[in-house]
This record gives sequence, C-alpha cells and structure tokens, in this order.
Amino acid sequence: MPKLSIKGLEMPESPIRKLAPFADKALEEGKKIYFLNIGQPDIPTPKVALDAVKNNDLDILSYSPSSGFESYKKKLAKYYVANGINITSDDLIVTTGGSEALLFTMGSITDPGDEVIIPEPFYANYNGFAVASGVKVLPVESHFEDNFSLPPIEEFENQITERTKAIIICNPGNPTGYLYTKEEVQKLADLALKHDLFLVADEVYREFVYDGVEHHSIMSLPELKNHAIMIDSVSKRYSMCGARIGCMVSRNKELMATALKFAQARLSPPTFAQIASEAALDTPKDYFLEVNDEYKDRRDTLIKALEAIDGVKVATPKGAFYCVVELPVDDTEDFAKWMLSEFDLNGETTMVAPAAGFYSTPRTGLNQIRIAYVLEKQNILKAVSILKMALQAYTKN
Amino acid sequence: MPKLSIKGLEMPESPIRKLAPFADKALEEGKKIYFLNIGQPDIPTPKVALDAVKNNDLDILSYSPSSGFESYKKKLAKYYVANGINITSDDLIVTTGGSEALLFTMGSITDPGDEVIIPEPFYANYNGFAVASGVKVLPVESHFEDNFSLPPIEEFENQITERTKAIIICNPGNPTGYLYTKEEVQKLADLALKHDLFLVADEVYREFVYDGVEHHSIMSLPELKNHAIMIDSVSKRYSMCGARIGCMVSRNKELMATALKFAQARLSPPTFAQIASEAALDTPKDYFLEVNDEYKDRRDTLIKALEAIDGVKVATPKGAFYCVVELPVDDTEDFAKWMLSEFDLNGETTMVAPAAGFYSTPRTGLNQIRIAYVLEKQNILKAVSILKMALQAYTKN
Repeated sequence: MPKLSIKGLEMPESPIRKLAPFADKALEEGKKIYFLNIGQPDIPTPKVALDAVKNNDLDILSYSPSSGFESYKKKLAKYYVANGINITSDDLIVTTGGSEALLFTMGSITDPGDEVIIPEPFYANYNGFAVASGVKVLPVESHFEDNFSLPPIEEFENQITERTKAIIICNPGNPTGYLYTKEEVQKLADLALKHDLFLVADEVYREFVYDGVEHHSIMSLPELKNHAIMIDSVSKRYSMCGARIGCMVSRNKELMATALKFAQARLSPPTFAQIASEAALDTPKDYFLEVNDEYKDRRDTLIKALEAIDGVKVATPKGAFYCVVELPVDDTEDFAKWMLSEFDLNGETTMVAPAAGFYSTPRTGLNQIRIAYVLEKQNILKAVSILKMALQAYTKN
Repeated sequence: MPKLSIKGLEMPESPIRKLAPFADKALEEGKKIYFLNIGQPDIPTPKVALDAVKNNDLDILSYSPSSGFESYKKKLAKYYVANGINITSDDLIVTTGGSEALLFTMGSITDPGDEVIIPEPFYANYNGFAVASGVKVLPVESHFEDNFSLPPIEEFENQITERTKAIIICNPGNPTGYLYTKEEVQKLADLALKHDLFLVADEVYREFVYDGVEHHSIMSLPELKNHAIMIDSVSKRYSMCGARIGCMVSRNKELMATALKFAQARLSPPTFAQIASEAALDTPKDYFLEVNDEYKDRRDTLIKALEAIDGVKVATPKGAFYCVVELPVDDTEDFAKWMLSEFDLNGETTMVAPAAGFYSTPRTGLNQIRIAYVLEKQNILKAVSILKMALQAYTKN
C-alpha cells in the first residue's frame, strides 16, 4: 500500500468530533443527548437571510469572483466601518468559513518549519491547520484561575525565534470565553511590531460580549496596518454555521494579493451562502439584542447551576458562548465517554468536550471540559442536572 | 513589514483569471466580451436542484457532518454504482468543490519536498495546490499532434524518484479534451501498482464524452483498491459551479480516515449546496442527453469555424468542453491581452486563455490557447469570427 503523508498521520483528530462515535452509538440505543460539546447554536437564523436564498432567481448557479461577490464585499465593508473597523472592500477576501480564512493566512505567511505562538487553551483546529501547513505551534499557557486572561507578555516574547511568523489569538475566546482588555490587545500589538510579526485575531464572536464590556478589535489599531490579520465568519453571528462563509481581512496589500492567489486556486466561495450572508447584513438590531440577552441568561443559568455542584468550578466567561469548567475527575475524556456509553438519567445524557484537546502542551487541562451554552435554558438545566448525577455515580466507582 | 511565505510568493496566479484586469477594463470601456476563457457553462442548472434550495424549510442553517450529509452520501454512492463505480457511502467524503478534494488528497499523501507526476498540459490549479503543499510537479509532456494522448509510459517511469507519491490525471482532460482509452488507463494503473504510487484521477467531466466513446474510471479497476483516488464535483455535471460541492473517493480505508481529519478541521461542506447537490441526483436523463448533444454540436461548430481560419489548428477533443488551439502567433498571452485592450469588432471582442499557464515546463505551448465551448452556437460563431479578424489585424502589425 502506498504511504500516507507524515503530516496526515500527525494531523490531530478534532477533540469536538472525537467522541462522535460514542454519541452515535448512544443515539442508536435510543438515548437522548444534550449536546453541550459543540458550538452549534439553537438560535434561529435571521429570516431575512433564509428568505433571500428561498427567493433567489438564479437559472445558472455560477462561480462568483474568487474574492467574493462585489456587492457582498461592499456591504460587508460597511458593516465593519459601522463597527469601528475602518476598511474598504479591497481589504477583504470572502472565504469558505473562517476555516478557509485561517488556511489562506497560514499559506500566505508560513512555510514548513515556521512557528506561530498561541495562548492556550485555544480553538483546536488552529493546531489542525498548523499541522496541515507543516507549522509548529508554540503555546503560552493561560490559566483557569485568572479566567484565562492574557499571560505575561514576556512569556510570549520568550517563545519568539527566527522562525516565528505570527501570534494568533481568539477574541472573545473559544474555548475560554475570555475577552481581552484594550491594554492586553495593545501589549500584543506592541510585541508584534517590535518583532515584526503578524498578529492574527479570530474575532468571530465579536458580537457576543456581556456585562457591558467592550470588544477591542486588532483592526482598530492603525499602527498594525501591515501586521494585523482578522479572521471572521457569519457562522455564529447569524447562527448560520452551515453557510460556510467567512472572510480574511487585512490592510496589508501585498499580503492580500498573495492570499488572493490561494483564493483563485479554489475558484470561489459558495454562491447560495454568499446570497444568505449578504442579506444577513440587513438583520434588524433587535435580533442581536435578543440573542445577546438570551446568551447572557444562559451563561448565568449555566454558571449558577454548575457552581452548585460539589467540586465543580467555572472560569467566568465575558464573551462568546463557551466556558471552561473544572470537574472533580482525573480524566474528563474518560468521564465524557462514560457519560455517553454507560450513564443515563431516565434515558437521557449530556455530551461535553474534554478540554485537553484545546491545549497543545501534553497532559494539560485533563480535569477540564468545555461547555457551549448553545441550548435553551431549560435544556441547559436538564443537561447540568444530568452532569451532576453522572459525577456522583462516576466518582463513586 | 513582516515577511510573507516563500510558497505564497511562489504561488502561481491562475492563468484563467490572470487576464481578468484587462477584461474588466474592456468591460468598463463598454466593450462586449465573448468569454471562451473559463469553464463557466451557460447551460441552466437542473430545476430540481434549484427548487430544492428554494423549498428548503430550515430554521437554523447548521453544520453538516464533516464528511457530508448521510442522505447525500448514500444517494451519491448509488449514482456511482449506477455508473459502474462500485463503492459505498463510506468510501467518499463530500468536499467544498473538487478543489478541496484535491487539497485533502495532497494533504493526506504528500509532505513538503514530495513529488507528483502529471501529464502536461494540465489544469493549472493542480500546480497551485502543489505549491501550496510544498510539492513539486514533474510534468510529462503530451503533444498537440497526438491530440494529447497518453505519452509513452516509460516517460512517466523515468520521472519516478523516491519522493514520488502519485500520478495525477484529468480524464476527460482539461484543457485538452482528451479521453484516455481503456489501455491507457490500464498502463497508468500498472505503473502505479509497480511503484506503489497513488493514482489520482480528476473525473469531473465524466458525463461529457462524445462520438460514442466510453469513459474508463480508475475506480473500475479492482486491483487499484488502495491506490486509486477519484476527484469529483457537481460543478460541470449539473452546471452548478457556484455550489462548491465535490467529493474525494477511495476504497483505501486508512487514506479516507486521514482525509477525514482534514475535513474535520474545516468543520463541514456548505449546507445549501449539499441540498442542491442531493436533489440534482434526480435530474432527468433527458437533461444529460440534451446537454451532451448541445456540447457536441458546439464542439463541431467551433472546430469547423476555427479550422477555416488560415494558420489555425485544433486538437480534436473527445470529451469535456475544452480544446487546445494553435494560433499563428508567437505569444498567445500577448495576443489575448491585445484582443482585450486594443482590438474590437463593432465594439465586441473575444477572451481566450493562453495555454502556457497549463504547462509546467517553461516556454511551452506559447502558440496555443485553450477555448472553452461553454457558450451557445451563435455566440461561438461570433467569437470565432472576431478571433479571425483579430488574428488578421494582429499578424499584420
């Protein structure tokens, strides 16, 4: 048999999808599962987006331009300007999900053997894209006790070598829910400038911030003109993960010209999804207010319920819709599997994501899980009460 | 400014999109352009596919499974079985266009520094994906005089080194329109087995074969179980290039498990487009008969009109909807630019793709162009008459 690639063999399995076979088996056995493991919101997609697709009058489903439909790009640029991010449609490329924006970014700025620095725990697929690109991730550990705030900037600086190309952050954070302060963003910017590195910020959860705090985009720092790359996506903003539309944004012209060549090689982003995404920009403001209230409510409900369980601790999230939770078990992967395959409460169980997969340092976060509060309150309460009973039964064994 | 990647700088510009700025300028100046440069058919997408999207009743546009919706995969497997390709839904991963199937294939079987062998001229983006993966393309030249039939198999064997991972073919060929005979496919299969290489076949034009000849899929050879990888797409089959749905097909379980990790990292293929693609499988047989008659007619019209021009030669295509044409000029790129920027016939001009970009060997095919016969007959005749006048004017200078 011909040999597979080394990088293919090294490619990590998604920690979010890793337990899927156990979930499939539980479903087959007739169990009901509360899915707190994946960021798939149950919030309806804005009607204006769905209707635009239903009412499309295409006879031929053609390619769009490689960087996306001009009309969508123009309207999207306006959305950014309205959000304090002063760019034009020339500064963005429409991509197939935020994932492809990351892929184009990696391709444009790294060669095999290069390095990127990422505070951990981090969105696991950053590692996947790094491995796919032959790039090494150097983690800087952030801590549960600090709600995963920015580690001392010296720890980032200590990781910089001549192969370092970028620092990558997710703000607000997945899986941590942490929102970087203005000062923290500035520290990262200063470091990037000092060492002439790209600063890549995944800001797909921009709209999801709570408690009156403000989101600070790296794109709002004019000194980062050539250094800032923003990754974005419509997936969470409009609860349309299945659209697969994102974008890569930078004012660095040479970078964007290079990224466009990667975009041309794959021809174009999906047409129907661009129609939906363009229309989604007309989503009424009320939608976001309601959705944000809903998420805040869910977060508060979740945290209160979790903290009432003996031995369970929660790192309070300020944004996104995830939180990292410490459980009184040694190995949450084993516990999560056990909940799916051996436990149920009246035929129901809960699925969570073991957090170790979000760390790049081995054997870290073994007692942590990530919970996505993407279900309605009643279901969150159900899911947590199941978790509570499961913990009792599991720790008794 | 931070440095871009070497591979980003080396990434080729798409030869099909390279002249786009000249076309944009011509359009701005009010010229009408006949686009023979790109494989964007003017054939309507099957109504059944468009209607399925219009009539969808989704409230939440969610992720699909990473390998595609189960219902689509099952139905797609049936389509292959009906076409003599005996696979199950476990042997395929739904991808975002054939492009992503190529990317997953490259990722799963090659590491930076590895090599692939491709008969040239070939679909230019193979080179793009190779550069993006740090992989070297070793070309084997096929010839205009032979209608681009398979070069002697020894020439492939001569290119094999210890870094060779695969032979990649496109059948029927883009840009050549050549359809490999059963014997040619067998020769490639024997060579792949002898040297334990993957044989990757891009078969997206499977349905477009003329003159009663038969298409021979690499998937129909049982001995290639672990060696054959088929790349496919709905783009051309149903004239839905903008869907961005393709698939990677192989019976090699270990390979597909590896490719799935790349699929997981990008989460899922687009949902609306999968709905359209699943419904497209119900396209009535008549559609294909009519479309094939139409393309055959266009091909015959095109070739007859081209061969009537002094100094113009055509390599007769048996499949797909492209042909390579020799023009009596030294540099077709210069000529193609000139046609866009300095020539017009009553305000109209023709856009073609210079063929040099389809060769990996430098300074090859300089007097050739690729023509896509994707416009209706009247427009093809118009476009060719413009080409004829343009050649007269250009060669007079």
